[in-house]
Amino acid sequence: MQPKKASESESRLTWIVAPQDLNRHGTLFGGQLLALADRVAAMAALRHSRLDCVTVSIDKVDFLAPVRHGYILDMTARVHFTARTSMEIYVSAFAEEPNTGNRELVCEAFFSFVAVDADGRPIPVPQVELETEQDRRLNAEAHKRYEARKAGKSATRTARKS
Amino acid sequence: MQPKKASESESRLTWIVAPQDLNRHGTLFGGQLLALADRVAAMAALRHSRLDCVTVSIDKVDFLAPVRHGYILDMTARVHFTARTSMEIYVSAFAEEPNTGNRELVCEAFFSFVAVDADGRPIPVPQVELETEQDRRLNAEAHKRYEARKAGKSATRTARKS
Amino acid sequence: MQPKKASESESRLTWIVAPQDLNRHGTLFGGQLLALADRVAAMAALRHSRLDCVTVSIDKVDFLAPVRHGYILDMTARVHFTARTSMEIYVSAFAEEPNTGNRELVCEAFFSFVAVDADGRPIPVPQVELETEQDRRLNAEAHKRYEARKAGKSATRTARKS
Amino acid sequence: MQPKKASESESRLTWIVAPQDLNRHGTLFGGQLLALADRVAAMAALRHSRLDCVTVSIDKVDFLAPVRHGYILDMTARVHFTARTSMEIYVSAFAEEPNTGNRELVCEAFFSFVAVDADGRPIPVPQVELETEQDRRLNAEAHKRYEARKAGKSATRTARKS
Amino acid sequence: MQPKKASESESRLTWIVAPQDLNRHGTLFGGQLLALADRVAAMAALRHSRLDCVTVSIDKVDFLAPVRHGYILDMTARVHFTARTSMEIYVSAFAEEPNTGNRELVCEAFFSFVAVDADGRPIPVPQVELETEQDRRLNAEAHKRYEARKAGKSATRTARKS
Amino acid sequence: MQPKKASESESRLTWIVAPQDLNRHGTLFGGQLLALADRVAAMAALRHSRLDCVTVSIDKVDFLAPVRHGYILDMTARVHFTARTSMEIYVSAFAEEPNTGNRELVCEAFFSFVAVDADGRPIPVPQVELETEQDRRLNAEAHKRYEARKAGKSATRTARKS
Repeated sequence: MQPKKASESESRLTWIVAPQDLNRHGTLFGGQLLALADRVAAMAALRHSRLDCVTVSIDKVDFLAPVRHGYILDMTARVHFTARTSMEIYVSAFAEEPNTGNRELVCEAFFSFVAVDADGRPIPVPQVELETEQDRRLNAEAHKRYEARKAGKSATRTARKS
Repeated sequence: MQPKKASESESRLTWIVAPQDLNRHGTLFGGQLLALADRVAAMAALRHSRLDCVTVSIDKVDFLAPVRHGYILDMTARVHFTARTSMEIYVSAFAEEPNTGNRELVCEAFFSFVAVDADGRPIPVPQVELETEQDRRLNAEAHKRYEARKAGKSATRTARKS
Repeated sequence: MQPKKASESESRLTWIVAPQDLNRHGTLFGGQLLALADRVAAMAALRHSRLDCVTVSIDKVDFLAPVRHGYILDMTARVHFTARTSMEIYVSAFAEEPNTGNRELVCEAFFSFVAVDADGRPIPVPQVELETEQDRRLNAEAHKRYEARKAGKSATRTARKS
Repeated sequence: MQPKKASESESRLTWIVAPQDLNRHGTLFGGQLLALADRVAAMAALRHSRLDCVTVSIDKVDFLAPVRHGYILDMTARVHFTARTSMEIYVSAFAEEPNTGNRELVCEAFFSFVAVDADGRPIPVPQVELETEQDRRLNAEAHKRYEARKAGKSATRTARKS
Repeated sequence: MQPKKASESESRLTWIVAPQDLNRHGTLFGGQLLALADRVAAMAALRHSRLDCVTVSIDKVDFLAPVRHGYILDMTARVHFTARTSMEIYVSAFAEEPNTGNRELVCEAFFSFVAVDADGRPIPVPQVELETEQDRRLNAEAHKRYEARKAGKSATRTARKS
Repeated sequence: MQPKKASESESRLTWIVAPQDLNRHGTLFGGQLLALADRVAAMAALRHSRLDCVTVSIDKVDFLAPVRHGYILDMTARVHFTARTSMEIYVSAFAEEPNTGNRELVCEAFFSFVAVDADGRPIPVPQVELETEQDRRLNAEAHKRYEARKAGKSATRTARKS
């Protein structure tokens, strides 16, 4: 399988924040932002692999500032790390104040997807070819997270027996 | 401020998975599950603090199994850790197969909320009183995560200048 | 078919009331509350029968108090009456004021479901085993309603010929 | 206050049934149909009173036949009974098979609304002037239901103490 | 194929404008109004042809006045022109002020649909039989638009190569 | 007021087509596509003017090919014409087949927005500075449409008196 450039996966989703996206304080629900982040991350995973993909985990989501009604939410997703069947995707979300155009980073998140066949079994994905300084930095951090996640999975299974 | 028992925050959200929640493979969108998880976590934060709360970060979300059309999603959220103005909430999601009633853990997530005043500034929350073995184990892990998150915030701000 | 305990069907749906659920007066739409009530009732019918179920009628829905933005709606559904192929389910909805935690009963409704096979024909359901005082009282009232409904169906078909 | 003709309140809502309206059996959710019925009933209440109105109760909802994807749902609401501050509205829903145009009555429901002032207190509504044979028959039945409902309200308050 | 009367296609959709339909200025989103207009136009196309239909183009949509929260949107669609496989439908939308009942024309649009077989290929539709003065005037204008549209399609393909 | 470059208004909205966006034939509703097109056009109008804007008309929408479940819809909007208080925006929508990445132009539309003050009265917008060959071609065509629209508005007001 041919490696693919990180830039080939880059996906962008913009959204004007509407009343139904707001909590009682008039700011965007964290969960709504995450649902949009998952959508744009899914596009990046699809464009990298051109295979059916499912979300397997999310690490380190930080909500850095509230987003208000009428702001433009501008999200970018890009693959920066691949294992045999999985991809890690960095999503950054900026909020653009409508009347000034001032932009502020409001959320960062790291999503992991795996490619699956028709029976839901993991299948190989193309390896990613890093292009920018940021790609390389995120890739280095992802290597650490990837190991930690594998280790962590056995250690943190905590759900009570229902 | 009086400490509050962990069980006072416990919140539960059940949901029958409907067609609009599904991706192209006929399974629940990760992002849709996260949006519901954020809703139930917000209820737990509200019930613990009785103050306005906003999501500040999410750590370690694992999607363990696909969820299908017609399954009952059964989510529980409970506070297990508090700092001065923030709370950490553990959300577990089970999927119940409709015809057999078999249940399977499909997602675990850790949400952090802060209580805010009318201007959005952090304000103190009651401390949590641990009750169960699981509360204590999660609390111990949260202490580590809390430190890591504070440390991590400065280290991982990675968004490119737009 | 084994009888089943009423408590095995008990289902609970909590919901934070959001802007899109509101009418022009800033209170929850009756229709939106009913749609949620039908969802939680459907879960109780499913858990009692473990068969596909469809709503056949609703009797006596009372809206007792308005519900506002940011309130937690907490709904419980439980089977208290069974005929050969049908179940009656009592749904109660409480609204929880977010900052005080005060709870108020805001809606009561009685739903009837039938279990159906793949062709939509009614099929037998397990009989319900009553457990609490309330189960028994509701069951007695349901017997009367069940007879009234069968009688009423022929008497009240009123739709004009379109 | 001038009485108003029943026909002045008549309201009609048509809807093409879409995938997100469907349950696991591919038929319209009862709850979704009820939410639409409440919307069209609210229009009839508003057109009769030209005042803010809220749903207070629903009596006798019958689901007579399943409705499928792509069918046109055609709902009509009309006031046929008024008390001092309340109105009863009859809603009938027909499903129109898309390729033949065959129509079938699929649901009937009776909604009660009250008009309210800015503080949510009931205020008087115009009395309804009956026009058709059906108006008169429904009005006679509503008189009985109105008495039964008032009587029933005290008798059936059944919610357990939460 | 029998011609069909224009009145047989007439379809009506009413809608109470809710918070999630509003933009930042508290008025109905143009796009939301268009989505509803497409729905009612699709009903008219279906009722005229009793065949599967898809939107092929829209001409001349005018938004004449803002629509606010709680207004009743009352839309009518009716076929006034047919070619071999296509129909043109005129949609008019009125907004009804809730407390006075005053109505104002807020949008007009012309939709073109084609009937398609299971493979998506255009198939013949019944010709429309004009009934009113307005039908005839719209039909005459549509003839001009129909020719202009065919001509325009080749002239205005302007999308940049992606 | 400073003129602004056409490229400063360019906005992009991508969307994975989900089940709730589909009609009975499994393809994207025309009305849903229009609602998304209005959203991205509104972003371009806002970014050009940095003022509150409302849709006033749409001309020439062509649906060129069906869009299916799981396809990525990729829409771009850009201002190419300004009058004193209005802007014309060209929206092109491409559908990207998920497994091959093949792209096809599926819709083109021209939206007109006006900037408004707090009372909804039109206010001046910056003039657009054309940059590309396509900007210039669209601008020339828009001049013609702009004149035709003004002329047409008086000629085509056709709504029946309700």
